[in-house]
Amino acid sequence: MDFVRAKAERARESALKLARASDATRAAAVLALAGGLERRRDAILHANAEDVAAAQRDGLAAPLLSRLKLTPEKLSLTLAGVRQVAALPDPVGRTLRATLLDDGLRLSQVTAPLGVVACVFESRPDAAVQIPALTLRSGNAVLLKGGAEAERTNRAIVDAIRAAIEAAGIPKDAVQLLEGRAEANALLAHDDLVDLVIPRGSSAFVKHVKASTRIPVLGHAEGVCHVFLDATADPRQAIAIALDAKVDSPSACNAAECILVHRDAAPALLPALTEALRKAGVEIREGEGAYGREWGDMTVSLAVVGDVEEAIAFVNRHGSKHTDAIVTRDPESARRFVAGVDSAGVFVNASTRFADGYRYGLGAEVGISTSKVHARGPVGLDGLTTTKWVLVGEGHTAAPYQGASPRPFRHEPLPPGDPLETR
Amino acid sequence: MDFVRAKAERARESALKLARASDATRAAAVLALAGGLERRRDAILHANAEDVAAAQRDGLAAPLLSRLKLTPEKLSLTLAGVRQVAALPDPVGRTLRATLLDDGLRLSQVTAPLGVVACVFESRPDAAVQIPALTLRSGNAVLLKGGAEAERTNRAIVDAIRAAIEAAGIPKDAVQLLEGRAEANALLAHDDLVDLVIPRGSSAFVKHVKASTRIPVLGHAEGVCHVFLDATADPRQAIAIALDAKVDSPSACNAAECILVHRDAAPALLPALTEALRKAGVEIREGEGAYGREWGDMTVSLAVVGDVEEAIAFVNRHGSKHTDAIVTRDPESARRFVAGVDSAGVFVNASTRFADGYRYGLGAEVGISTSKVHARGPVGLDGLTTTKWVLVGEGHTAAPYQGASPRPFRHEPLPPGDPLETR
Repeated sequence: MDFVRAKAERARESALKLARASDATRAAAVLALAGGLERRRDAILHANAEDVAAAQRDGLAAPLLSRLKLTPEKLSLTLAGVRQVAALPDPVGRTLRATLLDDGLRLSQVTAPLGVVACVFESRPDAAVQIPALTLRSGNAVLLKGGAEAERTNRAIVDAIRAAIEAAGIPKDAVQLLEGRAEANALLAHDDLVDLVIPRGSSAFVKHVKASTRIPVLGHAEGVCHVFLDATADPRQAIAIALDAKVDSPSACNAAECILVHRDAAPALLPALTEALRKAGVEIREGEGAYGREWGDMTVSLAVVGDVEEAIAFVNRHGSKHTDAIVTRDPESARRFVAGVDSAGVFVNASTRFADGYRYGLGAEVGISTSKVHARGPVGLDGLTTTKWVLVGEGHTAAPYQGASPRPFRHEPLPPGDPLETR
Repeated sequence: MDFVRAKAERARESALKLARASDATRAAAVLALAGGLERRRDAILHANAEDVAAAQRDGLAAPLLSRLKLTPEKLSLTLAGVRQVAALPDPVGRTLRATLLDDGLRLSQVTAPLGVVACVFESRPDAAVQIPALTLRSGNAVLLKGGAEAERTNRAIVDAIRAAIEAAGIPKDAVQLLEGRAEANALLAHDDLVDLVIPRGSSAFVKHVKASTRIPVLGHAEGVCHVFLDATADPRQAIAIALDAKVDSPSACNAAECILVHRDAAPALLPALTEALRKAGVEIREGEGAYGREWGDMTVSLAVVGDVEEAIAFVNRHGSKHTDAIVTRDPESARRFVAGVDSAGVFVNASTRFADGYRYGLGAEVGISTSKVHARGPVGLDGLTTTKWVLVGEGHTAAPYQGASPRPFRHEPLPPGDPLETR
């Protein structure tokens, strides 16, 4: 698979160029991407209709079919999101901190693009639009691999994107499509060229990717989210949040899989809660075997716990560190839950369904991370950056700062600014 | 190796408790650690003397022997560093950003401890002091594995630390020692319990760890640092920086391995540069086979390049993304080099030897990362944290924000503050 390595090498070369493109150039490229897709709208919708027809012949399940299908409205909404990404502040070149190490020796920590990102996703063709928008805006090259069922759609989208960004002065190989699972698997060997892999798909798939590569992997294998109804929960809020978290989109990773009820609230809450869930068509499971399960459908686990500490321990034992919520009127319970639950998102009196890059105001997301290193939770532009330490001196050597009578460092915090500006 | 898993489980339990300890408690624990080591100073130095004697009998090389040897002065210096770590601002619980998603719905991104960190290091016993100081201050539990030659010293140090932190109200299993390579290897299987591995050692060792685990790995396999002497470099500065970067500590990862000279500066610079290097005892190597090599001794590669762009391309091809420096008087060259070189540290008119957590003002470092995800460069307290998204609502459900006429989000930036404070 030498041509997969060649693709990765071209991605790396493009990334090195893109990293030096100005904010205005990268923002313009994202707008050009939106314009290019709009101009080729008919061709893209036509390719999608072919994919949908083939998927129907192959008997693809209805929910997958609905995710695969691109409508003019869906595409317009996605392009509106892309234009929002273009308008977001530049995530690159921000000075996060600056320190005067000694007279004339100034250290700055500055955000920089990651480099080459690989993203393997499922049938949703809008991901093939959103992800390149985010990677271009943040100065990264991307290698995309979509699902086989969306092959024609993804090719039409990526062809349009490549033509549009090339016309905008960005190397077209900053966005490339990998075709077939073999190419994606071959890419995982090139940890010297690819800086991050984002797998989006089933838990088994994400685990497979993690086990197959030395490239850092960002993603979530499971979304086992909890809603804990505390003793002081407002009953109306408690039931509304539990219900929304479960039924709003049961197959989403931020849907609740388990509801915990404080023992003291159980007599008052449980009858109304179980009735509301059953009325909505939710099946309730109880007992040790039901916990820690990602149902992904209209099933929910239910447990009664003694207090907030027991709820925290339960979530940390059975959850997947994605997003967990408490419904309470007690500020101390809220504080304990927020401090004690070891998850990417910890919510108070709000549905777990808000865990989403768009809803968080990140513009869009490349994925949701339950890893604790690098980006955690929904990953937007900031999660696609790293930092660079820029040290500017006046001929400083290190030897005087060590030995028997070392010159002391000043280590004075400076206001962040242009690391190369003469002051 | 069930007892290795048991250690990791105890570390995880301790980490969950430590994550909830206050700033004052964690800072006090770090001071207690320093006090405890001071009180057991004689026992630690005695254990170290036994390690040194055994290593001498085993014929350990002189540089390693000198790193192994702990003197009262070295220990005092290390403890002074520990007290600085205690005094650093709390890295945990800082609100990095806050957004008003809608009326009464406030999102905050707050720093949080990583959890359980494993650190495998070489003979330097001061690492067994510094690393627990950093992990405790940042609310993390640590599993330490030192070199076999420092076994007695490390055990004496870790015993003293455990006693001291337990007396300070921190679970003693927040700091544990793994013994033997088999235990360290067994630990690498427990990616459900360990959040980060930091291997410090040879390039081969770091690569071995990366290949052996699904746990995220932070570290650097190689330090192939470059110094580029630009056409406009001040000759005195150019030679001083090149010399310092090479000879100040040739086996350090931030030592220069290759010096690049701009073609236009070569006639004026090269004779004096090569003379200075040779006088210092440095052997000069040229030619394609010499580039990209981590000499780690008094050898340096030398190449003449046509311009700053060629220098950037050379560094990106042959370097290890650790730290690279330019010596120049041309602001445009500096700007290009800083933007174009894809390394954790990019320095202007300063020696690569400054790439170090203490010198950067981070207090100390757990290691230096050439990975682009998570922390990059010297890793101090901030690199040992992750973030948590805290969403506080008033019973908000997600359903109204989607569908045919969705309620719009406000997405207004808020000043960072206590995520749970009622406003």
